[in-house]
Amino acid sequence: MIVLKSPKGWTGPKEVDGYKIEGNFRAHQIPLAVTATTPPEHLQLLESWMKSYKPEELFDEKGQLLPELAELAPKGERRMGANPHANGGQLLCELRMPDFRDYAVKVAVPGADGEGDTYVCGRFLRDVIKENQDKRNFRIFGPDETVSNRLDIIFEATNRQWVAPIVEHDEFLAPTGGVMEMLSEHQCEGWLEGYLLTGRHGLFNCYEAFIHIVDSMFNQHAKWLKASAELPWRREIASLNILLTSTVWRQDHNGFTHQDPGFIDHVVNKKATIVRVYLPPDANCLLSVMDHCLRSRHYVNVVVAGKHPAPQWLSMDEAVEHCTRGIGIWSWASNDQDCEPDVVMACSGDVPALETLAAVSILREHLPELKIRVINVVDLFKLEKSTEHTHGLNDHDFDALFTINKPVVFAFHGYPWLVHRLTYNRANNINMHVRGYKEEGTITTSFDMTVLNEMDRFHLAMDVIDRLPQTGSKGVYLKQQLQDKLIEHKQYIRANGKDMPEILNWKWAGVHGS
Amino acid sequence: MIVLKSPKGWTGPKEVDGYKIEGNFRAHQIPLAVTATTPPEHLQLLESWMKSYKPEELFDEKGQLLPELAELAPKGERRMGANPHANGGQLLCELRMPDFRDYAVKVAVPGADGEGDTYVCGRFLRDVIKENQDKRNFRIFGPDETVSNRLDIIFEATNRQWVAPIVEHDEFLAPTGGVMEMLSEHQCEGWLEGYLLTGRHGLFNCYEAFIHIVDSMFNQHAKWLKASAELPWRREIASLNILLTSTVWRQDHNGFTHQDPGFIDHVVNKKATIVRVYLPPDANCLLSVMDHCLRSRHYVNVVVAGKHPAPQWLSMDEAVEHCTRGIGIWSWASNDQDCEPDVVMACSGDVPALETLAAVSILREHLPELKIRVINVVDLFKLEKSTEHTHGLNDHDFDALFTINKPVVFAFHGYPWLVHRLTYNRANNINMHVRGYKEEGTITTSFDMTVLNEMDRFHLAMDVIDRLPQTGSKGVYLKQQLQDKLIEHKQYIRANGKDMPEILNWKWAGVHGS
Repeated sequence: MIVLKSPKGWTGPKEVDGYKIEGNFRAHQIPLAVTATTPPEHLQLLESWMKSYKPEELFDEKGQLLPELAELAPKGERRMGANPHANGGQLLCELRMPDFRDYAVKVAVPGADGEGDTYVCGRFLRDVIKENQDKRNFRIFGPDETVSNRLDIIFEATNRQWVAPIVEHDEFLAPTGGVMEMLSEHQCEGWLEGYLLTGRHGLFNCYEAFIHIVDSMFNQHAKWLKASAELPWRREIASLNILLTSTVWRQDHNGFTHQDPGFIDHVVNKKATIVRVYLPPDANCLLSVMDHCLRSRHYVNVVVAGKHPAPQWLSMDEAVEHCTRGIGIWSWASNDQDCEPDVVMACSGDVPALETLAAVSILREHLPELKIRVINVVDLFKLEKSTEHTHGLNDHDFDALFTINKPVVFAFHGYPWLVHRLTYNRANNINMHVRGYKEEGTITTSFDMTVLNEMDRFHLAMDVIDRLPQTGSKGVYLKQQLQDKLIEHKQYIRANGKDMPEILNWKWAGVHGS
Repeated sequence: MIVLKSPKGWTGPKEVDGYKIEGNFRAHQIPLAVTATTPPEHLQLLESWMKSYKPEELFDEKGQLLPELAELAPKGERRMGANPHANGGQLLCELRMPDFRDYAVKVAVPGADGEGDTYVCGRFLRDVIKENQDKRNFRIFGPDETVSNRLDIIFEATNRQWVAPIVEHDEFLAPTGGVMEMLSEHQCEGWLEGYLLTGRHGLFNCYEAFIHIVDSMFNQHAKWLKASAELPWRREIASLNILLTSTVWRQDHNGFTHQDPGFIDHVVNKKATIVRVYLPPDANCLLSVMDHCLRSRHYVNVVVAGKHPAPQWLSMDEAVEHCTRGIGIWSWASNDQDCEPDVVMACSGDVPALETLAAVSILREHLPELKIRVINVVDLFKLEKSTEHTHGLNDHDFDALFTINKPVVFAFHGYPWLVHRLTYNRANNINMHVRGYKEEGTITTSFDMTVLNEMDRFHLAMDVIDRLPQTGSKGVYLKQQLQDKLIEHKQYIRANGKDMPEILNWKWAGVHGS
């Protein structure tokens, strides 16, 4: 390596208009302006600057570079732009992928107990590491949170790479390892970007609330992907995969400070050809989504998933279909198969799915004549029009799902306005009622976080009643019961410091009232 | 200052389940879990840990802290939470403010030549610095861009504070000064946050594209403001004022890399009581907005303004009215005073205002029978419903401005979807057609940046024709002329490396065709 230290603005004009330029901060700006309105001395300065390179020694009388100088330039792959290390897609080897279906959790009935979705996904990632260990082309990056994000099972296959001495009681540290950890989201994201650019593969896992730290870095990478995709000689590289967990709804012990699901708002503004956002509702869906993301090229994939034990909804076969579609009716939770729905209850994200299904079971128990359609959205861009994003549904398919005139109560993982931003130009826009995070919280219980933001089962059920006057007196009485439930909840958590048993132990009990 | 260095988890359990806790990384997590399902030894460990503090030496038999120990706690203002330096609003002195009207630029007719809006604002800020120099309670922070953002006139009143040696050719550096510069957006924003928390006032100026670097820091400050506003004993502090310039539409020399107007998308997700966003279209409006922001308390104010010479639209009296309203019809540009408009042309931001007015002048020249209403939005939250943000218009006022059934062609400074996110639930939502930045660009001319993103005058005029079939053949022929203009533009900039004279020299010529 040669290190050349030179003055800023070296060989440029030394002084302009009495100001020092070369070797001075002014060389950072335009050193010498030559326009119709600048003094004529500037033109002379420019001429003598240009002549200082002695063009007569460099070019022949036709203005052609002398052959002996042209000869100095490297040839073929030694040219900087043609070096395969600067065009990493040329060096990219496919990952060897274990079959994600082999990691499926059993879901005998919807609502089966889960181990934590990222925990399950960890087994799959562990084996991705194993399968590719000889190629050394897959790494997992994270700001000190691999264990906290419940991916620790990957340490069965690898270690954290650690260059400092290893002392007693250290864990999973080694001079080489497939996990790169540093408590700096900047460093981790930058490492991964560079790693991908050399033709390798990786995953960045991060607390959801802290990913905004790399907003600006994501920006530049997304812009680079967009611009490089327009150059025919640039080969595609592996996608920048970001797994967000420790999410807004289950960071109750950190109250108000660790809640910000808005990274995806930032992501959706980038070029539609580059960005993808997935919100798998359970472990089998997460496995299917993760497999897809790791195989994909030249995207930024953002995956939002839970880490705590939570109910599981879909068998692996169902999950593959659901995630491949990206959006769909959960018919086992719906009862409008033979008629028009009275209301559509949509959800996106794991906790919103849970609260929606709990609301559906309340409504179907108390108002069994109500026809409810339940929709889950895994691939967020399905909501946008097909003219705006290649994943978007066309109006025909969107209207078929969401209807053109029925109320839609939508529980969303993030800020509710993102759903409106994606659906403002759909026929049923006026009936879209979205609940999500609206910057409320304190150190409280998990369920209370949803209550404070009015995305809990009781508020969702009340939202339905409010939009269906045909529920009449039965609706009015049920609404008051639900209001009382919320009061009971507040009193209970204050007295007991934990959620009510009926919340903690709630299970989807299948088909009420049908 | 006393520096105490202690082992992590000091005095906690030394070892749990065979793992070292005290003095180890595990002390960062829950050191000891005691739940219904953990082994009973954990309860014993907890008891001996708690007893290690010897409560019998600290509390009497009633469980009351011993008086001699209670006596050790500081009293009154020496208590940490009651120290006025930890509750800066108690120390806050009003800024002495020069009258911003004294810095007005003359606008004899709309479209008068300007000097650059931030340049004009610099004179006002210079005098804010002067007026408060003895109090030392106002500072301007920026990542090395005070000159580039054309606020350099403030150096008539102060210097950059500089603690390193000062060498020949350095400029505006001094051991004390009112300007804090470091090429780190993090550092500058952090400095300002801390400065405000001590009860003082300030302004952070930044390139628009780079402000995403502090997304996460802004987040935490906005959350702090929201939470502290709920505590009755916390006094309000001065607002965090962010001036964004060197904006998307005039960063053409940096092509595609320096364009991201999405910080305001991030800001609008925070609590409505805390955040404000202003897009003054000219220098007099910027003066009025800046005066308001510097006087305000406990907000985050984001002001987006241009720095390059650009047309001026409003006299100071008009600017004060317009900015106080926050939104309004520009009647001098409209011709629907006596009837319904055929189309509403709305704009927010300086370049969008310019392109909208240029489009209006094309339309009024060629289709003089067309009735056009021109609306400018300074205060972005005026677009949102009054139920969502205190600045929001109620439906009655919004519908009066934007109509409930006429096409609206809206040229917006930022990502177009932000306007949809704010207006999705307005009666005229279906007719809102928004142009803005959609991640297109290259190193090109200023005007071409608007063309690439289809926010230029020609596209805006075509957007109007597309939505007004009643323009008939005249509309069709005009549309083809405009398409030809765009082709001519492309050829001209390729051949000449600059914009066409008719673009560079365009002026608002007042009332065509009326």
